[in-house]
Amino acid sequence: MEKINLAAGFASIDDYWKPRLAGVVNDMAVKLVKLDGEFVWHVHDAEDEMFLVIRGRLRIRLREREDIVAGPGEFVIVPRGVEHCPVAEQECEVVLLEPAGTVNTGNLRNERTVTEFGRIAPA
Amino acid sequence: MEKINLAAGFASIDDYWKPRLAGVVNDMAVKLVKLDGEFVWHVHDAEDEMFLVIRGRLRIRLREREDIVAGPGEFVIVPRGVEHCPVAEQECEVVLLEPAGTVNTGNLRNERTVTEFGRIAPA
Repeated sequence: MEKINLAAGFASIDDYWKPRLAGVVNDMAVKLVKLDGEFVWHVHDAEDEMFLVIRGRLRIRLREREDIVAGPGEFVIVPRGVEHCPVAEQECEVVLLEPAGTVNTGNLRNERTVTEFGRIAPA
Repeated sequence: MEKINLAAGFASIDDYWKPRLAGVVNDMAVKLVKLDGEFVWHVHDAEDEMFLVIRGRLRIRLREREDIVAGPGEFVIVPRGVEHCPVAEQECEVVLLEPAGTVNTGNLRNERTVTEFGRIAPA
């Protein structure tokens, strides 16, 4: 059993859109990811996805309603089946919470798909 | 789909050790709770439990190893089956992540058991 320090964890990440595994709670993965710029439109058929913003500003684009913009200390849960496109208007540090098998690009497989996760070292 | 602001959520809580539901991610509940003082020793037979400290200082006492102390921006995952006693050495704001049916007092039922959860209002 170990403690994770978010600031140290994010400091260890030097790329964007590549989630690192920070812990597992039952069948849920806790991941840290740095975001910058625009991702791709995608949908997770069976997985809800929580975005907790630690630093920066995250815009979640949605097809049939207004974007949701979250800043530090705010979170949004995108339900399964809802197509979305995350956009970091400025460099953004995000804690992701989603089922352990979730693929970052959802229904898509492309050059941004991450299938092997680095791990965040304990504090 | 709504945004939750942690600061506003915690500001709406005026008691201790009574988790409020802030969201559900698949079968996982995200809860906000304020802690002060010592809780009770308990164990969750089937549920891992994540404590993410937002403010204050949380000590997690364990039976056969050193306590883990977490401050703001740090989290600890207590695996199922591990007896623990949370102690807030100073008033503490914590995001809990645990399976939706988790009982706060685990294997115990006493005056600190919470079975009905208030909800955090969206931002």
